Amino acid sequence: MSHRQRREALCQRLVELQLDALLVTNSLNVRYLTGFTGSHAALLVHAEGDQRSVFCTDGRYQTQSQRQVPDLRRVIDRSCLLRLAQDAREHTVGRLGFESHVVTVDGYAALAKVTGPEVLVAISRPVERLRSIKDHTEVAALRTACAIADAALAGLLADGGLHPGRTEREVARDLEARLVALGAAGPSFETIVAAGAHSAIPHHRPTDTELCCGDLVKLDFGALVEGYHSDMTRTMVLGAPSAWQQELYDLVAAAQAAGRAALRAHVDVREVDAAARKVIVEAGHGNDFVHGLGHGVGLQIHEAPALSQFAAGTLEVGMTVTVEPGVYLAGRGGVRIEDTLVVTGDEPELLTMTTKELVVVPC
Amino acid sequence: MSHRQRREALCQRLVELQLDALLVTNSLNVRYLTGFTGSHAALLVHAEGDQRSVFCTDGRYQTQSQRQVPDLRRVIDRSCLLRLAQDAREHTVGRLGFESHVVTVDGYAALAKVTGPEVLVAISRPVERLRSIKDHTEVAALRTACAIADAALAGLLADGGLHPGRTEREVARDLEARLVALGAAGPSFETIVAAGAHSAIPHHRPTDTELCCGDLVKLDFGALVEGYHSDMTRTMVLGAPSAWQQELYDLVAAAQAAGRAALRAHVDVREVDAAARKVIVEAGHGNDFVHGLGHGVGLQIHEAPALSQFAAGTLEVGMTVTVEPGVYLAGRGGVRIEDTLVVTGDEPELLTMTTKELVVVPC
Repeated sequence: MSHRQRREALCQRLVELQLDALLVTNSLNVRYLTGFTGSHAALLVHAEGDQRSVFCTDGRYQTQSQRQVPDLRRVIDRSCLLRLAQDAREHTVGRLGFESHVVTVDGYAALAKVTGPEVLVAISRPVERLRSIKDHTEVAALRTACAIADAALAGLLADGGLHPGRTEREVARDLEARLVALGAAGPSFETIVAAGAHSAIPHHRPTDTELCCGDLVKLDFGALVEGYHSDMTRTMVLGAPSAWQQELYDLVAAAQAAGRAALRAHVDVREVDAAARKVIVEAGHGNDFVHGLGHGVGLQIHEAPALSQFAAGTLEVGMTVTVEPGVYLAGRGGVRIEDTLVVTGDEPELLTMTTKELVVVPC
Repeated sequence: MSHRQRREALCQRLVELQLDALLVTNSLNVRYLTGFTGSHAALLVHAEGDQRSVFCTDGRYQTQSQRQVPDLRRVIDRSCLLRLAQDAREHTVGRLGFESHVVTVDGYAALAKVTGPEVLVAISRPVERLRSIKDHTEVAALRTACAIADAALAGLLADGGLHPGRTEREVARDLEARLVALGAAGPSFETIVAAGAHSAIPHHRPTDTELCCGDLVKLDFGALVEGYHSDMTRTMVLGAPSAWQQELYDLVAAAQAAGRAALRAHVDVREVDAAARKVIVEAGHGNDFVHGLGHGVGLQIHEAPALSQFAAGTLEVGMTVTVEPGVYLAGRGGVRIEDTLVVTGDEPELLTMTTKELVVVPC
């Protein structure tokens, strides 16, 4: 889908909401709707369409915005929020929507001074709602990002990159260098490498701790491609697994398979979480699975929909999500297995292809 | 200064503002006040002090928060904003401040449902105000970060890393790898390498364009150390500079020196900007200097104070800022020279030590 088509889809939504225009201030939403990749911009989307919409960025991005956003009226200003509000007032917009999950209390006060409060209509996540369903261009970027992550991990293993004596930090840097060498713009978030007891910390930051024989090693990482984030976790073992490690792994793998099996369009997100969680609860480890089952991925590493017992909503075709149960035994070790998948009307499409069998690294 | 001392300084401020407590929801502010480095947390700071204050994070960070925040009451919750608001209500806090530059319109509505709107007091940037003046620990981290950036650039040049035929992207990756090898947690922002005509784009992203003899090459980059960001720009030339390149360079270097000379405690930030801008305006290039003179650096790459003709306020001892005038000639090339400095009562302390003479790279 082109950026223009995305804006058209948003205009339809504005008509449904009886808004004359929407002030888009979240920079990722601006990127989604225009292709602009700078750090500061805003967009006034008119319900009537592109001929009345206005793009704003600051002086640093004059040249870049000319190239990336040739098809919209552009203005250059240090304060895009207020400049576009002024533009809306001058064009006597009657009902002006704003992103109430983005605009701060201070921002709202400044906005209301320009337009008057009676014009403003709080709208929560209208663009995120569109973004939650990926078009072909977006799925293609995610597919590439996931393939790069798969290749980076395969290369790390093939080159003996996981061996006793290497530190978590060294492994993380190695993986990240491989992502970049394979064409990623960078890692899609701070790479997690957690060895031994550290694997029981869900979001562990790599340290100078050395990998040891007998360790579980949890790797959670991804590649950034054209702004899209892949996300994959694999947990491996250095040397033959002990009985508790194998048991823990099999449990999480079974829960992850159950979660994937439940992942389908029109299913409630809580049901997907429950399908995986049930397996872990029945094994007596409910309290050791301390987070939700998964989350949407796209221009953000965490975005809608959340797959969680505390979330709401149903899945739709084209959503891209992670499925990542984990069981964490403090002081001993933990296992998490995570894929990125595309929701379909049938079985989900798997984007992360690395095996989910327990990989035993020779030690 | 310890985190406890920072909280004590904030408590004093709360007493001045006649607040019983402050809800801190900006995660960098939470980090500044507690040392917690996870991605999700909030802090309820009571004016009475630590014995009544409460730290909140979610289940993923149970272990990490125990280690990093041992000295405060901790609660674990998925929604820290609401949990801490509830805590404040239960302890009948009468006047509860919240960060009105952080809390969104939606967040405020949810907060007001818990506490009642009459309890809530909007306060803009109370912690940022403390953060703008760096203590010794912070300056030390910035000093290290700047030294790493200096060493990375020196290494790049010594190893012939800037040569015709190399792409902007390769140079950027090389610089970033050097930062990490020298001990940085990563680059402090997306490295800018801009060659030839690209140097006229203030925030250019590295491309596959090759460096050529005769190019100006603008390098804007930094190192991240213990959460603190260094920031430095140098513009070099491949081969002997042409007359216009030398002239442009000399102009920007003179403006940068004038900006640094004006940088001193108790001076209005607009005066510092004006001191540098005057030099460029008088040379007839006022319209080619399209951004402010500089910005504060610390836990964020851009933070208070802004050195700009549109900003307000005066400098204080211990602020760390950049001074970075630039002149950009579209289609030809541009020059920016940027240092990170500490404001004192006298001459500023320079943290970025790389020469500001025009470096001519043999071609």
